Amino acid sequence: MSAAPPDPVAAVTDLAARVPPADEEVRAAAVARLAALATPPGALGDLGALAVRLAASTGRVPPPRFDDAAVIVCAGDHGVHARGVSPWPQAVTTAMAATVASGRAGVSATAAAAGARVAVLDVGMLEAAPPAAGVTDANVVRGTRDASSEDALSHDEAARAVLAGAAAADGAIDTGARLLAVGDLGIANTTTSAVLVAACTGADADQVTGRGTGIDDDTLARKTEVVAAVLDRIDPDAAGLSLLAAVGGAEHAALVGVLLAGAARRVPVVLDGVITDAAALVAQRLAPDVVHHLVAGHRSTEPGATVALDALGLDPVLEMELRLGEGSGAALAIPIVRAAGLVLRDVATLEELGFA
Amino acid sequence: MSAAPPDPVAAVTDLAARVPPADEEVRAAAVARLAALATPPGALGDLGALAVRLAASTGRVPPPRFDDAAVIVCAGDHGVHARGVSPWPQAVTTAMAATVASGRAGVSATAAAAGARVAVLDVGMLEAAPPAAGVTDANVVRGTRDASSEDALSHDEAARAVLAGAAAADGAIDTGARLLAVGDLGIANTTTSAVLVAACTGADADQVTGRGTGIDDDTLARKTEVVAAVLDRIDPDAAGLSLLAAVGGAEHAALVGVLLAGAARRVPVVLDGVITDAAALVAQRLAPDVVHHLVAGHRSTEPGATVALDALGLDPVLEMELRLGEGSGAALAIPIVRAAGLVLRDVATLEELGFA
Repeated sequence: MSAAPPDPVAAVTDLAARVPPADEEVRAAAVARLAALATPPGALGDLGALAVRLAASTGRVPPPRFDDAAVIVCAGDHGVHARGVSPWPQAVTTAMAATVASGRAGVSATAAAAGARVAVLDVGMLEAAPPAAGVTDANVVRGTRDASSEDALSHDEAARAVLAGAAAADGAIDTGARLLAVGDLGIANTTTSAVLVAACTGADADQVTGRGTGIDDDTLARKTEVVAAVLDRIDPDAAGLSLLAAVGGAEHAALVGVLLAGAARRVPVVLDGVITDAAALVAQRLAPDVVHHLVAGHRSTEPGATVALDALGLDPVLEMELRLGEGSGAALAIPIVRAAGLVLRDVATLEELGFA
Repeated sequence: MSAAPPDPVAAVTDLAARVPPADEEVRAAAVARLAALATPPGALGDLGALAVRLAASTGRVPPPRFDDAAVIVCAGDHGVHARGVSPWPQAVTTAMAATVASGRAGVSATAAAAGARVAVLDVGMLEAAPPAAGVTDANVVRGTRDASSEDALSHDEAARAVLAGAAAADGAIDTGARLLAVGDLGIANTTTSAVLVAACTGADADQVTGRGTGIDDDTLARKTEVVAAVLDRIDPDAAGLSLLAAVGGAEHAALVGVLLAGAARRVPVVLDGVITDAAALVAQRLAPDVVHHLVAGHRSTEPGATVALDALGLDPVLEMELRLGEGSGAALAIPIVRAAGLVLRDVATLEELGFA
């Protein structure tokens, strides 16, 4: 691998160019092995389809063991918060980052059940976490600007956030992770996610704007107006990095970096809810083949999630009415991704059993 | 605990009488803790509801850790096979039992991903497995009689199969298991499952009869006729043990035993597909409170599964179009059950974080 160019924007372009397509030869081999297993045809349902997807992503059949899985949670704050889209103060982002790092958040429970490690990355929090809190400091901006009136980030800030996410992914892979999962923290980030989903899919503001943490009707109406206002201000057809800069947040940019870096090394990445789904759409704009390396962990109840998953062509593993974020639903799906991989490794073929 | 009565039928009655109701006080405490967590109200969706269910079943909030989980796979053959309801020879039951025991079956992959142990119990296989195969010999009958013309089992055989399942459950719990999952092996057992589901729910034969391992239209028509014929011969309102004797199979009876024994000790049991769902309906007839200790691991594509789950009032954890049996879908759900339990253990409340 050549040394990364010193220019962050060029480095993102370089990263995106390294995302490989699915390995169609391996996919065909996985389909053939699945059909040869000592199970009735089709009996493995979605688990069999997932096994094939993992083989095509990793380029191996069976895919590698996904015992070592890492959840990367990217955190940032949003200038659009000033428009009254959330009842929560922005300090909650920092408090929750510390809570995740201390193992006391929702994702802590689901990652513990999955035997997955969790890292929290501050890329754009308004307030830094105390150094002892265990949050990784990769901050590029102390909160974005208000996307309804100006670009949330500079291109340089957006690119550095992408690279911070990519570095976290590379670090996890370098230390043994063979599966990544992503999550987010950021008060008001369902608002910017709605904008990104609408921009990437052509959906209207009211199709992608939801209640987030559970806002009332008045706040939802205001939030929908803000989403429409941001959409009106930006160019929805802008290139991926320009879109990230226009809308934010830094955590979306970092998530894009995780997705691209995982994909570039053929390490599948499990998506969580609408924030990560929005990041996947932007990553797809930067590198269309990234989608072959993504697994939708679950379907969030946030309406933009379903719009995004449909546009990505991803069928979620879980449908559990989750809307917590933090990577909680992605972590929950990790054992099922592992099981799918093991189907092509552990299960005997009829021939191996002497039946064919 | 008093010594078990020597009469198997009386022992089953005794076992059923030991199934406790859900602990409503603990349920209320779990609901209160869930509401106090540092998560937006309702954001944990079905995972939160499952956490409450596990607390009410186990009588503890948080519920115990479910690290040690055991999958018990019960195997048997069916006289109704002679009616041409399946293209597979009955020898496949024994071959698959040995395959599960050797760790090369579908459930092997999903249980390995879940870190769960697997035991295979021969309660009614036509052919015994070789002693070295690792299948536990608890056989009470070498295949049932044809339920379309006579009772499949005697009451004594049915009761001994129930007790064999209960003994396997007790053995797993005595060696540390805090969560059980169930699975089945038995060529033609979707036929007898359809009968049991119809008898327990009032559904018609064509509502509960499916393609099992993937039969063609002619075989499906014949299978539906056989289900209707058995339903016609038996008393659908018979007591639980009489119903098991009339229809079979021995593996259904053993599964009933696992469910009752787990419930009796407040160890939740995860159901797999239609065979285990049918057993749950029969267990409910024996002990109505058993349902509070059951978790539907997934929704099988077999139509009787949905009819059974609706009657049981169980919302499945997974919807992955599985129809493999073996406990494969139940094992797949184990990590999610673990995560639900950990939600009430690991996640901080707002008060603990100093926010309330």
